Amino acid sequence: MNEQLALHTDKYQINMMYVHWAQGTDSQRAVFDVYFRKLPFGNGFAVAAGLERVIRYIEQLHFTEEDIAYLRTQEENYPEEFLDALRGYRFSGDIHAVPEGTVVFPNEPILRVQGRIFEVQLLETAILNFVNYQTLVATKAARVKQVAPNDTLLEFGTRRAQEADAAVWGARAAYVAGFDATSNLRVGKMFDIPVSGTHAHAWVQINDSEEEAFRKYAEVLPDQVTLLVDTYDTLKSGVPNAIRIGRELEARGKRMNAIRLDSGDLAYLSKKARKMLDDAGFEYVKIVATNDLDENIILNLKAEGARIDVWGVGTQLITAADQPALGGVYKLVAREKNGYYEPVIKISANPEKVTNPGVKDIYRIIIRETGKAKADYMALPHETDIRNGESIRLFDPVHSYLEEKVTDYDAIPLLKTIFKAGELVYQLPTLEEIRQYHQDQLKAFWPEYLRKLNPEGYRVHLSAELWKLKMELIRKYQF
Amino acid sequence: MNEQLALHTDKYQINMMYVHWAQGTDSQRAVFDVYFRKLPFGNGFAVAAGLERVIRYIEQLHFTEEDIAYLRTQEENYPEEFLDALRGYRFSGDIHAVPEGTVVFPNEPILRVQGRIFEVQLLETAILNFVNYQTLVATKAARVKQVAPNDTLLEFGTRRAQEADAAVWGARAAYVAGFDATSNLRVGKMFDIPVSGTHAHAWVQINDSEEEAFRKYAEVLPDQVTLLVDTYDTLKSGVPNAIRIGRELEARGKRMNAIRLDSGDLAYLSKKARKMLDDAGFEYVKIVATNDLDENIILNLKAEGARIDVWGVGTQLITAADQPALGGVYKLVAREKNGYYEPVIKISANPEKVTNPGVKDIYRIIIRETGKAKADYMALPHETDIRNGESIRLFDPVHSYLEEKVTDYDAIPLLKTIFKAGELVYQLPTLEEIRQYHQDQLKAFWPEYLRKLNPEGYRVHLSAELWKLKMELIRKYQF
Repeated sequence: MNEQLALHTDKYQINMMYVHWAQGTDSQRAVFDVYFRKLPFGNGFAVAAGLERVIRYIEQLHFTEEDIAYLRTQEENYPEEFLDALRGYRFSGDIHAVPEGTVVFPNEPILRVQGRIFEVQLLETAILNFVNYQTLVATKAARVKQVAPNDTLLEFGTRRAQEADAAVWGARAAYVAGFDATSNLRVGKMFDIPVSGTHAHAWVQINDSEEEAFRKYAEVLPDQVTLLVDTYDTLKSGVPNAIRIGRELEARGKRMNAIRLDSGDLAYLSKKARKMLDDAGFEYVKIVATNDLDENIILNLKAEGARIDVWGVGTQLITAADQPALGGVYKLVAREKNGYYEPVIKISANPEKVTNPGVKDIYRIIIRETGKAKADYMALPHETDIRNGESIRLFDPVHSYLEEKVTDYDAIPLLKTIFKAGELVYQLPTLEEIRQYHQDQLKAFWPEYLRKLNPEGYRVHLSAELWKLKMELIRKYQF
Repeated sequence: MNEQLALHTDKYQINMMYVHWAQGTDSQRAVFDVYFRKLPFGNGFAVAAGLERVIRYIEQLHFTEEDIAYLRTQEENYPEEFLDALRGYRFSGDIHAVPEGTVVFPNEPILRVQGRIFEVQLLETAILNFVNYQTLVATKAARVKQVAPNDTLLEFGTRRAQEADAAVWGARAAYVAGFDATSNLRVGKMFDIPVSGTHAHAWVQINDSEEEAFRKYAEVLPDQVTLLVDTYDTLKSGVPNAIRIGRELEARGKRMNAIRLDSGDLAYLSKKARKMLDDAGFEYVKIVATNDLDENIILNLKAEGARIDVWGVGTQLITAADQPALGGVYKLVAREKNGYYEPVIKISANPEKVTNPGVKDIYRIIIRETGKAKADYMALPHETDIRNGESIRLFDPVHSYLEEKVTDYDAIPLLKTIFKAGELVYQLPTLEEIRQYHQDQLKAFWPEYLRKLNPEGYRVHLSAELWKLKMELIRKYQF
């Protein structure tokens, strides 16, 4: 956890810091928003994750003498005075963020960084690296949870994860969104997440027979017996052998926990295996399925009547295989100018890439009558109507001529203060609190926004004033 | 680099080790093969990578007191004597592997682990985690290199990588397969890979004008001037401003390096920008392109006549987006029985999942007349015909009735000894040597096997004896 990550950044951040330093503008203050433009997997929402990792990163952030020595080798020939400035680097700015587990949407800042440009420019790469991946996996996990809300969900992806950190932080993100356990012991140790495991084909193969393998396992771990039944032939060999061992366990006053299916037609095999187990009096023995599962396969298996109680989800979850990157960005939205924050914009030939300027607060508008979320709303800090619950106009951010008036609502601010003048002021919730908070978040949304296929689009609105500011800045840069 | 990774494993490995220990079979020797079953991206070959990471992992592998204390909390109630056995864990076995950069194919072992089952069972998860990801990214990078062999290729993916380790090891894998630099400074520091970087939109936005931003940058870093020209309008603002700065640099006896395009139609913009630069006398200024590039987009841009000299490749490479996991497996192929290695097999309803039994050597058959690879060939260690260059029969591993005789060849053994009785005996090559070795590897193949779209399938053959052994074992488990 105490990795040295100051150099876990793109070189251009250091070069921009250097130019600022050389030009004497390194203490100019700036504001960056972190947000994504498009939801992954065709989902209707995303699940924010990564904040704890960001906090730990910023708390330990400094350049070691080794880092400085390495930078001295670069062709930029950084002067020693600049390297001294890096040596003195400590983050002294402010960070606001939505808590982990928050349901979030495109184009709203899920993290906002303010401070000296010298300090905040450095953070971009690492923050995006952490928040992009963890938010992506939490969102994927939420989709799996949605199709199997009452089943046990196990994260089994380490061997196919994109290297060690992905296994660790991906497993944590899955747990945030409702998974019940992981197979990775390091994750269990780091975050106190339950760890689960059975045995591999190798255990069966190294013994003289499958039956002997099962028996030896059950002798040593009689309270943890989940038997993998597909090494040779699931129905002709694996399940009958498991039933034999189940009887032996009962004779010892123990109960077999489950069998695991890892290949073949999981719908067919689970139904047949269920019947064989039930006929033998093992109604209590569960069926675990693994083998490249994702939310679509699980949904279809359930629709076909598969008798599976526990799902081990690996590759597809830990790599978010159908869309392995969230395109989160870190964009300058305001710069210090004559002592105040001046909003800035980035124009683009692609209209969806035009940024929303200025320091913005985000509110979730909850209609009092229903208790459900109507929309999210971004406003400038001095706007009071939303804070005071006055009637507001919501107009479509693309088709801006379509509008609607909203009254009798609660406006819930989504951004919390995390760092204040470099000081961590946020009380990190426990992982169990984060899990609960995420489930509570989901309850505030109509199911139309949450469903995994073709969800209704939930809107993030700009206040009239923010919209006007954006239009003015766009006109300023129209050539 | 000195992370404690003993718990970076699936719990079931520890449970299997525990059952072996409790049953007194922990010193039984076993052999595991690491291989993948299917090439990623429809490519004709893969590029082996990850070995250095595996070596470092094994060298430092031990359970800390913290690890032991954590394991004591698990519901398995491991006895103290077992935890003592873990405390004494050191790898004392043998590892053979193909060197990093080797061109490899499905179903041939790229790594082979032999030793006490107690020791070798633990390694599965971490080895697969490292080798799967790094081989995947090296293969993806080789595809990019193939479409732009003479251009400069920059790895720019950190912010979209699946967490920090992926950024690090993915960048290294890309470099192995021919990339020229990365943007990540930590990677540069760890592996002495060149690091490259320009500036971001934020640099332009925080200044009063684009022209001022460019000028200030060029003042401080006159030898590193690559200007990002799309913050407001590439052709109307960015390129004209860059040309102005280029003139100012020439007046100081300096030369602008490049401009960077990051949005819009890269084919159109690069041709227009090239003409504007050339007309202004800046034939020497290069054009860098970024924006979700991959080998297909690059190939199409080049076909359309885009004038791009340098490609910054991010998301698509670092996540291997079109197939973000290589399905590498770690399968038991032999177990100690009465003092010798007995081959074992795993049967599956999916024929391609049936394992190849036994300890196997792999050879690359190079036809002397052409100097080109004919096929790879797996044989049992006692088979001498292949080692002596005698005439051998190659028969199709699926359509086994199709066969061909081969003579006048060199048989190059692919597996090198890495660890011998726990001792590292392999001299790790430098990264530059690995890069060169990989390029040399490619030269041994006919282009039909290497092309990125619909390549001819290169064959991996089983010796007649290995084939017979496999058939016998399959029959043994036919129910």
